[in-house]
This record gives sequence, structure tokens and C-alpha cells, in this order.
Amino acid sequence: MLIIMQPTADKKQIENVIKYVENQGFTAHVSNGEVQTVIGCVGGKTIDKRNIELLEGVREVVKITSSYKLASRTFQHQDTIIEVRNAKFGGQYIGIMAGPCTVESEKQMEEAAEKLSATGIRTIRGGAFKPRTSPYSFQGMGEEGLKILRKVADKYDLAVISEVMEISQIPLMLKYVDILQVGARNMQNFNLLKELGEINKPVMIKRGMSATIEEWLMAAEYVLSGGNREVLLCERGIRTFETMTRNTLDISAIPVVKKISHLPVIVDPSHATGLRDKVAPMSLAAVAAGCDGLEIEVHPHPECAICDGAQSLTPADFDELYKNIKKIADVVGKVIQ
Amino acid sequence: MLIIMQPTADKKQIENVIKYVENQGFTAHVSNGEVQTVIGCVGGKTIDKRNIELLEGVREVVKITSSYKLASRTFQHQDTIIEVRNAKFGGQYIGIMAGPCTVESEKQMEEAAEKLSATGIRTIRGGAFKPRTSPYSFQGMGEEGLKILRKVADKYDLAVISEVMEISQIPLMLKYVDILQVGARNMQNFNLLKELGEINKPVMIKRGMSATIEEWLMAAEYVLSGGNREVLLCERGIRTFETMTRNTLDISAIPVVKKISHLPVIVDPSHATGLRDKVAPMSLAAVAAGCDGLEIEVHPHPECAICDGAQSLTPADFDELYKNIKKIADVVGKVIQ
Amino acid sequence: MLIIMQPTADKKQIENVIKYVENQGFTAHVSNGEVQTVIGCVGGKTIDKRNIELLEGVREVVKITSSYKLASRTFQHQDTIIEVRNAKFGGQYIGIMAGPCTVESEKQMEEAAEKLSATGIRTIRGGAFKPRTSPYSFQGMGEEGLKILRKVADKYDLAVISEVMEISQIPLMLKYVDILQVGARNMQNFNLLKELGEINKPVMIKRGMSATIEEWLMAAEYVLSGGNREVLLCERGIRTFETMTRNTLDISAIPVVKKISHLPVIVDPSHATGLRDKVAPMSLAAVAAGCDGLEIEVHPHPECAICDGAQSLTPADFDELYKNIKKIADVVGKVIQ
Amino acid sequence: MLIIMQPTADKKQIENVIKYVENQGFTAHVSNGEVQTVIGCVGGKTIDKRNIELLEGVREVVKITSSYKLASRTFQHQDTIIEVRNAKFGGQYIGIMAGPCTVESEKQMEEAAEKLSATGIRTIRGGAFKPRTSPYSFQGMGEEGLKILRKVADKYDLAVISEVMEISQIPLMLKYVDILQVGARNMQNFNLLKELGEINKPVMIKRGMSATIEEWLMAAEYVLSGGNREVLLCERGIRTFETMTRNTLDISAIPVVKKISHLPVIVDPSHATGLRDKVAPMSLAAVAAGCDGLEIEVHPHPECAICDGAQSLTPADFDELYKNIKKIADVVGKVIQ
Repeated sequence: MLIIMQPTADKKQIENVIKYVENQGFTAHVSNGEVQTVIGCVGGKTIDKRNIELLEGVREVVKITSSYKLASRTFQHQDTIIEVRNAKFGGQYIGIMAGPCTVESEKQMEEAAEKLSATGIRTIRGGAFKPRTSPYSFQGMGEEGLKILRKVADKYDLAVISEVMEISQIPLMLKYVDILQVGARNMQNFNLLKELGEINKPVMIKRGMSATIEEWLMAAEYVLSGGNREVLLCERGIRTFETMTRNTLDISAIPVVKKISHLPVIVDPSHATGLRDKVAPMSLAAVAAGCDGLEIEVHPHPECAICDGAQSLTPADFDELYKNIKKIADVVGKVIQ
Repeated sequence: MLIIMQPTADKKQIENVIKYVENQGFTAHVSNGEVQTVIGCVGGKTIDKRNIELLEGVREVVKITSSYKLASRTFQHQDTIIEVRNAKFGGQYIGIMAGPCTVESEKQMEEAAEKLSATGIRTIRGGAFKPRTSPYSFQGMGEEGLKILRKVADKYDLAVISEVMEISQIPLMLKYVDILQVGARNMQNFNLLKELGEINKPVMIKRGMSATIEEWLMAAEYVLSGGNREVLLCERGIRTFETMTRNTLDISAIPVVKKISHLPVIVDPSHATGLRDKVAPMSLAAVAAGCDGLEIEVHPHPECAICDGAQSLTPADFDELYKNIKKIADVVGKVIQ
Repeated sequence: MLIIMQPTADKKQIENVIKYVENQGFTAHVSNGEVQTVIGCVGGKTIDKRNIELLEGVREVVKITSSYKLASRTFQHQDTIIEVRNAKFGGQYIGIMAGPCTVESEKQMEEAAEKLSATGIRTIRGGAFKPRTSPYSFQGMGEEGLKILRKVADKYDLAVISEVMEISQIPLMLKYVDILQVGARNMQNFNLLKELGEINKPVMIKRGMSATIEEWLMAAEYVLSGGNREVLLCERGIRTFETMTRNTLDISAIPVVKKISHLPVIVDPSHATGLRDKVAPMSLAAVAAGCDGLEIEVHPHPECAICDGAQSLTPADFDELYKNIKKIADVVGKVIQ
Repeated sequence: MLIIMQPTADKKQIENVIKYVENQGFTAHVSNGEVQTVIGCVGGKTIDKRNIELLEGVREVVKITSSYKLASRTFQHQDTIIEVRNAKFGGQYIGIMAGPCTVESEKQMEEAAEKLSATGIRTIRGGAFKPRTSPYSFQGMGEEGLKILRKVADKYDLAVISEVMEISQIPLMLKYVDILQVGARNMQNFNLLKELGEINKPVMIKRGMSATIEEWLMAAEYVLSGGNREVLLCERGIRTFETMTRNTLDISAIPVVKKISHLPVIVDPSHATGLRDKVAPMSLAAVAAGCDGLEIEVHPHPECAICDGAQSLTPADFDELYKNIKKIADVVGKVIQ
């Protein structure tokens, strides 16, 4: 931590700051510049830097270590590669997760699984518990939905990803699901994250709509610090002033996160844009920018979907898209698995 | 719901849309304008308007009823006034909640309660379970903290507000706390909101950092629709591009919400700005703009606070501020209780 | 325009609204729904819809025609293709503009032009007048810079794009430059836009940092309505809460604009991200998402660049990137020209 | 400037960085911490910090001097007080500017001036050149409007503020106007700002919709560095994701700017909110938060206004508001002039 004093700070103010940080267990190194004094601090415990910024004569406090450790490339240089059944995410591998927003019936999921499997997909998605903005909307099939998911996945040898909304749902999820997804609205549900740190299945954390990249990595840190090292990050759009898309998909987050973290970065173009005809271009853009996976909504009959049909592709459209995804993966030196 | 067709839409496309909405249970009223056709739809069930927007020839779909009902002034014209012990929020009343960010010890809370009580405060705040961005930060005293809160509150005849983070904590909260606070990060934790709809104590919902006013009211709707009609809304800053304050306190949300909803609007200037010297001007601004309450962090010794000391006022500063709050309340025709 | 009344609006209020709009020259069509009355208005002049929203009993006013006309696909269905020397932008063509941020010397530009030309580039960029946030920064070479640009461009048979900051600079620009660029900070400098509507050279309008897509198209409308139909749009990042990139490149704006407008959409990944190592992934992403051109900063010696060296590619890196751009263009059915 | 190296940076990388900054004229002071090395740099010219951040082994570069100098309290500790005719802005004084959005006729302005003067207002506003998002909207009366403004102002002994959009309009403005206003869309029109640095009348700079406080102060710096020391800053709302108000009025910018700059801070609640019934609460909030002035739209007949009638107060409403403004100014120790 560096404490930058005001150019006008006097000797007494500087001494006062030094005393303060030493009381917190830091060792202070003072360097008197031409314009102002800078105090470097090492050791000491975690501290709220604003406490120091409020001391007389202080201009600014700069933290020089990042708050996330286990998620950073400093801790682990090599890419984390997560393998679930036949799917791989990270490193040179791109994994594609696809399926309906919501599990509606066995017939629907059977049809979805059959077609996705024919395309070459290795992970199926589907929601059993649904976070809905309105209390008056359909809230999901619950355990019945999870059973259906598992059954069709096993038949076609697919991995299953589904969203967990609540601590009490974890045991149920572990029984039926291979990857537990944390939704954007729960990205800072710290109690849930802590519990997920203690399971031994991969967790995919969606970026909160207003979460900075640093906060997103801190959410991952909650899971990692509990001992669970299989974390996937999923970019799904951030909230901005633009209203022509539901959210603004932050494609540049892909190379930014890949540089500072070893965790795989997945992209969800369906929720980010909210409209079917934007899903294909944004999927291709994400792969071109270096993502490690995609999560795409595909419904056998989008026009009848209970939820988010407007952003779901038909299996035929998806099959078409998949071919182009493969070609672009090839250009950037990646392999679909 | 109104469906506005493209100026270029042909007869077949219009018929197709009519057929679609009639299948969903709507009655369609077609009006052929000079430029384009508009189809008014009544009856029918809740529908994702994007499904219609994807039909050929449709330009835009406009919903003409709001998604929140119980929270709106259409449902209840008169202001909701919430009374807890001696405090009142809403209507002509402004209630002030004050206290430390975190319960640290009985000594700390005793000192806080004594001083706040001397100033005239009727509700004390304090966190027992803390949502922390970092897994490595202090996570709160738990039940021990709640017991302390209750004890000092009873001694000085104060109401207690504290944050609930998790469904499993609700029974504990009900035992010790008068108002249950839902944090900004949990504003769309729908399972938690649903459970809070079934208790019989007031719930204060903080606005999520990237939540629109409509989403905030929908969160209130979750609690209201469960049968609990005592909901307070709390503005605590939204996330914007500006970094000189932690968040941007959306003061204009006060008159906006007051116009469309009957629920009391509280403002938390401490978390919004994150800096002690901004708390007083923003508190006065909120009262001048018509808020129904304030939640302010006050710590007997901010420099020793475990958490958020940088944004906490001393009891003496707060006492000073309180006098000005009263004067401004008087200008806008409100009473502090 | 549709006027949606409150469910509680009474007969007198409805009549009052009708009288108001008829006074403004509109014909009113009333339709009484089960829940509320909707008044459709045709004819009439342009009107500020807030004036109606303030009338008693009005819930909301919905405009059903877009404010931009000449920029829309309703006005012109086919893609506008802009040809400048050997370069083409729009339709199936992707044009690449490359070069240094600022013209610094003839030697620098000669070296840049030679290498870019060898790679296959047909349009060179370079700033002669620079918009700088600080008054203490280098402000550009002025006419001397434009002369250099023209000279090297002619030698290698390249088109020239450069930024115009001020009405008084237009005659000079017309003498030396093939495409006049309007910077993001000037996107709503309406006097400048009006003047550019009267020239007969293409104009490229960068999206303002906080401009919605609709405002961006309205800026284009200023130029188009003056009679100049050669307008290119350039996405260069919007301002959001995320600070790890300078701006957030809104890649999804590409398919959104392509759907509603016939104008070519160019992307500038250099200014959006502000960092060299993010330029390649974002260039590929933009092409994968369907853009009609790229504007990329390339400097023969980025480490010596007066301005924005940090985001400039070396000619060698750019040559490498160009190969991948071509491959991805091929996947999405486009041709680089 | 401080250069913070990666914990993993080796000796050669550190030496390379030192050599780089010394070549730029800096003196480097190396301090080897337990975790990482920090290099303090003094002297040297202005430098793009990203150039250093791209060197191998560098983690982050922190600038420790602010980019604005003349606008800062370090340069001038005392509040700047600007006096124009009988009005004063800054220090203990609050100046109120009021009047119609646009000058429409002499009759309109005469009526406005008479009523505002009766209320006690000392500065009248009115637009003669209008920045309009649409090329199809009314663009202002031009010089004729300025003449009217001057005439009625002289009759009632008022100062005049009006917006300048273009360098070529400056001579005209100087002839008729006392304070030249720079609109939000022109906040980074650097050529215009430079010219305004050379006039000897006060300039009021509106904050750009997506401008950070630092960029706003840099815009002021352009004017100040030209020699014109009479600059007023005007907050008028920033662009956020919330759509229920036109912009989000950043009230907290008032205490933030007042702390770091000596320039007066004015607030425009009319443009920020865009709706008449929000103007009063936001005016009071701004005064409570410590602003040095208000700019409010008042029209003798808002329902007939050519422009922005929806956000204009009637003279009677304004008179009422003015009384409360005075009372709140009194609470915070300020005087209306």
C-alpha cells in the first residue's frame, strides 16, 4: 500500500499518518519527493484504505496487491481446464452448453437432447428453479425438472448444467447436475458462494449486471478459498444506458480476464442480447475474441417456450451456427469439445 | 398491450399477428392508421412481449399496464405509514435510523445507543451478518450481535433494524429485530423475498446497484404479494461511470418513486458516498427532496470501527447534522419521528 | 403517436387531451379498452411528448414513428456501399483503415504507408488536428500534417481519412482528405454536422461515449438531411462502470444498427480498449459480428509515438492480424477491400 | 508518478523500466518492498502512463499529481466568487438564473423578465442558438433573440446568460450576453473552449452527459489556461441505466467538486430531470447539498413553449419554489444574490 500525501502536507501530518499505519501493524517507508511525500507500507492486516484517506494531509491511497489471489495468474500461471464428462473448458478447448431456458416436460427435453447431441454438443442446460423478476411468473418445475434433465442427459451421454438459487437446493443439485450455475443476480450472494466452495463439482459464476471484473473475480475467490478449484466465469452482459439490447455484452472482458486469471471464461449471448437474431453474431464474436465456452439457449419449439423463447434458437439454426463457431475456433487456434 | 406494426407490414402479416395473440387468449382490436396499423390487445395471460416483436411485420410492442400492482398508487392511493415502536416512516413522517455498520461489542453498542438516544433517534441499526466482497474480511458476530442489539435497544426504548442475508437466518432475525433489511446485493434474491412475504414484521429493501426503479418495485411486489404489506424502500446509490464517489446517490428517485408508489422511501447516504464528509450534504439533500427516512452510519469511535469507519459519523457530528435535518424537514412540511 | 390514459382517467380528462392534440393539428382516434382508454393520433406536427404526459389522466405517450428517416432501412432497404479510391465499405465489403494516431513527420508517415500498403491496406488514417482532454498536450501538426498525409497516400495509391474538429477546418480538409471523420466528442456538435451535410465527400461519425444508438443515427440524419448521402458510422466504445478497459466496445451495436439502418458500420478497437494487446481480439470479434470496416492504429514505432502509442500495433503485428481478419471475413461471407 | 512492478518482475525488467523513464527525462527512485518493487519518478514531461504499463513486468502506474492545476484548490485555496451585475455566484452566495429555454418573442421575454424580477431574480436565461438532437426541430432565433434578451434584461436590470454553440458566434454573444454558456454536448469541443479562454466574460461549462468530474475540470482548465479565470461549472445530470428521469442528477458531485476546486458549482434541475414536477424537489436538494447557484427553466406559458415546456415552471410555481430555496439556503449558511 502506498500513501501519497498532499503537496501541502506538513511534517506533523506525515508523522501522524506513519503512527497510524504502524499501529495497524505496517512498516512504513517514507520517500520525500520534490513535490510530495510518499509512504510505502508493508506487512499489516487488511485495511479499509478510506480510513487513511480521511487523515489530514493525505491525497490518495493506492493498494498495490490485488484482492483476489487464488483466481489470479500470479497464483497459478497455467490455464485451468475443467473437464466434465466429455466436455472441456479452458486452455485450447471451447465447450458449448446449449438447451432450453426452462425444463418444461420430458418430451421437450428429449427432443432438445436428441438434436443437440446430433449437432455434437456435450453439455445440456435447462433451468429447474427460475429467478423471475415478477412474482407472478412461472417459477420452474423443481426436482421434477432436474430428474428429467438427468435422464435425457444420460441417454445421450451429456453433461448437465443448471442454476442453483438457494443454499437449501444444493444437495438436490448435487444429485442430478454436473455443473452448478450461479445466476447474475446471485453473484454476490456470499453465503451461497461459501457453501459452493465446499462441494466437489464445478461451479459457473455469471457476472452480475453491474459487477466490475474485479468483483466478479472476488466472487470466484469465495468459491476457490473454500477449497473448490473448479470455477468457470460466465460473461452475460452488463447494464449500460443503451436500451436496444437487453444488456451490453462486454466482449472485451474476455481478453481482459484471460490475461489476469487462469479460470475459463464462458459467454452467454442469449441473455445478454435477449433477441434471437443477435445470438449468432455475438456467439461468433465471443469465439473470435478468445472465449473458452458458450452457453446458448436452444429450444425445439421457441414459439411455445414458457420462458425466453424470444432469445432461443431452433435446433436447425443452432446447427448452422455451430458450423461457423467451429471455423472461427479454428482461426484462433482453439478446439471445440 | 399495443402492437405497432411496421409501415410496410402487409395484410397477411397483420392477420398472422392477430391469430397469434388470439391463441394466447387476447381479444384484438385493429386500428388502421394512415402510416401503420396498431393492434390493441386485452385479456390474455402474461406474455413475453419479445415473442410478438419477433413476428414478421411487427415494429414494437408496448405494455400499457405496469408489472407491479400492490406497490403502485393505482392499487393504494394513500401513503403507507409504517410504525415501529416510537418511530414512523411515510406520509408526513421522517424516521431516522442510525448506528454502527457492524455490531462489534456490547460496550460499543451501549455507547452508540446512549448517544443516539440523547440526540432523539428512535431506531438503531447494526449488522450481525455482513455481506463482504472479500472472503477474507470480517463476516459479523452472528446471533451474539443480535442479542447485544436487542439488549441496548430495549434499554433506550429503540426499534432495531438489521440485515438478513439468508433464508435460514429469518427465525433468528424475527426473535431480535424489528425491521429486516434486505441488502442491495440481495435485492433480486427472489427466494429470500418470497419468505419475507410471509413474516409479520416490516422489511426494508435496498435498491440494487444496477436496479431500475421498476425492478426495485418488483422486488417489493414479491414481499407484498406474499401478504406482508409493510415494505420500506431504501435508495443507496447506483453504479455509474463516475468513480469519485463509491456510487451515485440517485436523489431524483425519491420524487419519482413517491409519485408512482405509496411505499416509504428511505435514503442511505453513508453507503452511497462511502465518505464521511459527504454524508451530511447528502442527508440534507435527501430530506429536501422529500424522503421518508434516513439510514446513517454513526459509530462512537469511527477510527476504531471494524468496518466502514470511513463513512461513519461521530455522535457529535451526527447530533449537529440532526439539527439541520430537522430544519429542512420543517421547510418541506415533514416531521421527524 | 399513442396516448395511453390512466385506468382512473375520467371522461373530462379524456376530452381535454383530445382537444389538446387536435389544437396541435392531430386527428384523434379513441379506443375504449376494458382497463383504459387509448387515443391514437395521426397528422400533426412534431411535438414534445412530455407536454402530453403532463396533462391530467395521461399515463404514457408512445411515439410510433422513428425520429431518423433517411438513415433507416424503411427509407432505403439496400445497404449503402461507399467507395473511396480502391476501398469499399458496406454490403459484402469490409474496408480497413489503418495508420498512426497522429501525423508526426513525413518520415513516420512514409514508413507507415509503405508497410500498410505492403499488407494490402487501401485507406490510411492520421490526425492533423487532435482533440486532447488536456490543454497542455500536443495539439497536432495542422495543415502541414494534412500535406504529408496526402503526399504519402498518393505515392501508395491510398485513400485518406482524418478528423475534422471545427467548421473552419472544412475547406482545408476537403483539399487533402478523402473521408472526413467526426470524433466522438463532436458527435452532437450540430453546427459542424450541418456543414458536413453540404460537402460532397464521405463523412464518418464516431459514436459519442454516452450516445444511444438512436442519437447516433440522428447525428447521421443531420448530415444526410443536408444532402450528403455518404455517411459511415463508427463504434468506438461506450462509457460504462467498468474501468479495466478505457471504454466498453459495444460489439452488439453492429447487428443492431445493421438491422435498422443501411449505413456501413465501422469499428475502432484501438480507442475503445486503449491497450495494444486487446486490439487483435476485438478486431476479430467485430468482423465476426458483421462489421463493414475497421479503423486500427498502427505506428511504425509505437514506443516513440507522440500520442496513443500504447494502443498502436506495430506493422508486423498488424500484418499478422490482417491475415486472421481475412479468414474470419471469409467465414461470415464478406470480402476485404 | 509511481511505477508498481509485478511481484514476479526480475532485475532485468526493472532496469529496463528505469532506463525507459530516464530517457523521458525522469529521475527514478527505486524502493524494493517485501512483495514487489516500486519506482517513484519525478521531473520528466507529461507521459501516457499506458506506455509504461505495457513494458514487461509492470503491474500498474499511478499518477500522483492531478491533470488540472488552475481549477484545483491546491492552486487557489479560496472560493472563486463571480459577480455579474447584481448577481453573485460562489463563496457564501447562491445566484439563481431563470427564464425560458428558448427566446420566442419580445412579448414572451418581457413577461418572463417582469415576473422573474418581481420574484427577486438577478440573472435571466434564454437560448438564441439551440442544440437540437433532430435536424427537423426549431433551431433558435439567432441574433434577433439575443437583442430581445438584452433589451428586457436592461429594462429590469438583469444579467443575461445564453448558450454559445460555435466559435463564429462568440463576437455576437459578447455584444449581448453577460455569461456565455457551453452546453453539455460541447463540453469537449476543445477549439471552442480555447477561444473562450481569451474573452473577458464569465463562461459556464455544463458537465457532459458521460463526463467524469475530472474531465469536467479539465474542460474548465482549457478556459482557465487561456487567461479567463471566470469559470462556473454546471451539473445537469449524467447518463445512467435509469430511464424514469431523462438523466440522473449527480447531487453528490456538488460536495465532491467543492472540496477539490475553488470554482462555483451551479445545478440545472430542469434539463436533468426533464419533468416539471421534479424541478422543485431537485432544486431544494441541490441547495441543501451546498451548490452555488441554480439554473431553472421558467416560461410565462409553459403549455405554449416551443421547446422544453414540459420541464418549465410557471412564474407562480417558481415564486413559490424561490421562497423555499431561500429558507434552505439559510439552513446551510448561504445567501441568495
